[in-house]
Amino acid sequence: MELKDYFMTRATRRAYADRPVPDALLNDLLAQAAHAPTTGNMQLYSVVVTRDQEMKRKLAPAHFNQPSVMSAQVVLTFCADWNRFVRWCDERGASHGYNNFLSFITAVVDTSLVAQQFVTVAELAGLGCCYLGTTNYNAPQIAEALELPRLVVPVTTLTVGYPVDEPVDSGRLPVDGWVHNERYADYSSADINGIYAEKEARDDSRRFVAENGKTSLAQVFTDIRYTKEANEYFSKIYYDFIAGAGFPFPLR
Amino acid sequence: MELKDYFMTRATRRAYADRPVPDALLNDLLAQAAHAPTTGNMQLYSVVVTRDQEMKRKLAPAHFNQPSVMSAQVVLTFCADWNRFVRWCDERGASHGYNNFLSFITAVVDTSLVAQQFVTVAELAGLGCCYLGTTNYNAPQIAEALELPRLVVPVTTLTVGYPVDEPVDSGRLPVDGWVHNERYADYSSADINGIYAEKEARDDSRRFVAENGKTSLAQVFTDIRYTKEANEYFSKIYYDFIAGAGFPFPLR
Repeated sequence: MELKDYFMTRATRRAYADRPVPDALLNDLLAQAAHAPTTGNMQLYSVVVTRDQEMKRKLAPAHFNQPSVMSAQVVLTFCADWNRFVRWCDERGASHGYNNFLSFITAVVDTSLVAQQFVTVAELAGLGCCYLGTTNYNAPQIAEALELPRLVVPVTTLTVGYPVDEPVDSGRLPVDGWVHNERYADYSSADINGIYAEKEARDDSRRFVAENGKTSLAQVFTDIRYTKEANEYFSKIYYDFIAGAGFPFPLR
Repeated sequence: MELKDYFMTRATRRAYADRPVPDALLNDLLAQAAHAPTTGNMQLYSVVVTRDQEMKRKLAPAHFNQPSVMSAQVVLTFCADWNRFVRWCDERGASHGYNNFLSFITAVVDTSLVAQQFVTVAELAGLGCCYLGTTNYNAPQIAEALELPRLVVPVTTLTVGYPVDEPVDSGRLPVDGWVHNERYADYSSADINGIYAEKEARDDSRRFVAENGKTSLAQVFTDIRYTKEANEYFSKIYYDFIAGAGFPFPLR
């Protein structure tokens, strides 16, 4: 397969074979992923590897029992981590100031970059992956299960295994819908209609709208999948968790 | 070159040839990058492409005049973007609630994933890239130069071009220094010494320590590169910018 074909057709895979992912392969993929760039090469992340069934059962409710957690050979929780760096500073007589909003965001970006690099090398090795956005919702339960110390915050999770489901082309917005030349060109109604036309016309989109008794696909997102109530509820939980983990945001 | 060799040896490239990066190539790479996964396939990002010299001159001070900005053929500013999605919701009679902390973090992660996927496809096509962490420091100036509307926040920037500098192996921490099995194993002094030993022993690390009159590499980070004062100063600026962009965090 041409590399470009891989990048243009890759897809999230949520169901996995009962086929082991050897430790040596996993470590090799993690080593490759770590060559993703990070701020000042500080590598402000940790990854907790879950293979144990009992540990998966502890994590599953935090991920709303999405079946990919129990089906996966490996669950990887990617955490923003200033703990290790600060421990190093403490050991070396270096007076640090990383318990702030900018430092937190820096670590979130670093963590995301290494997670995506892991997805790429894992998929090229024949594995399938699924991101779990629930990581940001239920960070307190995840942190308790994985015994995360202060300055360590779960950012995203990947379930990993040899896929048994078929890859589904979920489609993407046209490139000129999200790329702007020189200046951000804000969207007219006609622009919005054009950008979302293909997405709205998909069979699966029409089915979601019909099944949920809605009049538009956008309402499936706002009323069912990502509601204001849930967003605000989990915002407060995540925000409080981060503050409790040692990042008191500046304006409190 | 074996793919694994690419992933294990890739490096940030900061100096670029005076060789054009054709629009067709750039658009093709952006299209590939967009197949990175995002939350609910919402693609909560926009990319602003800067090629114009005058626009680069406007952006350069926000990036503390790092030479890669002016040397690059293309500067890509990756922004967390809820504006487009909310415009779509408004057009479709969908009552949304995305002006909150969780939604902001979701978009930051989406944006980081597509940026890293861009780096991978661009490097595989022979280009070199450099992330600019200054994007989070001086978001207000960047947003003004690029005319970003509400709900659009700069997250990271890539300078892109055909590299002329030699790739430098900047090294990485040993994998068992940041990967934890089943539970986070907090670090003892001996662990920290082992994890950072190779990094501290590098010639460039020793040179940084000596040139800056410090007694440890950690102090180069805390006293010179990423100081408490700068972190707190830019935390407040970034935090206020994000709040002003329409994401009033829950505990204000």
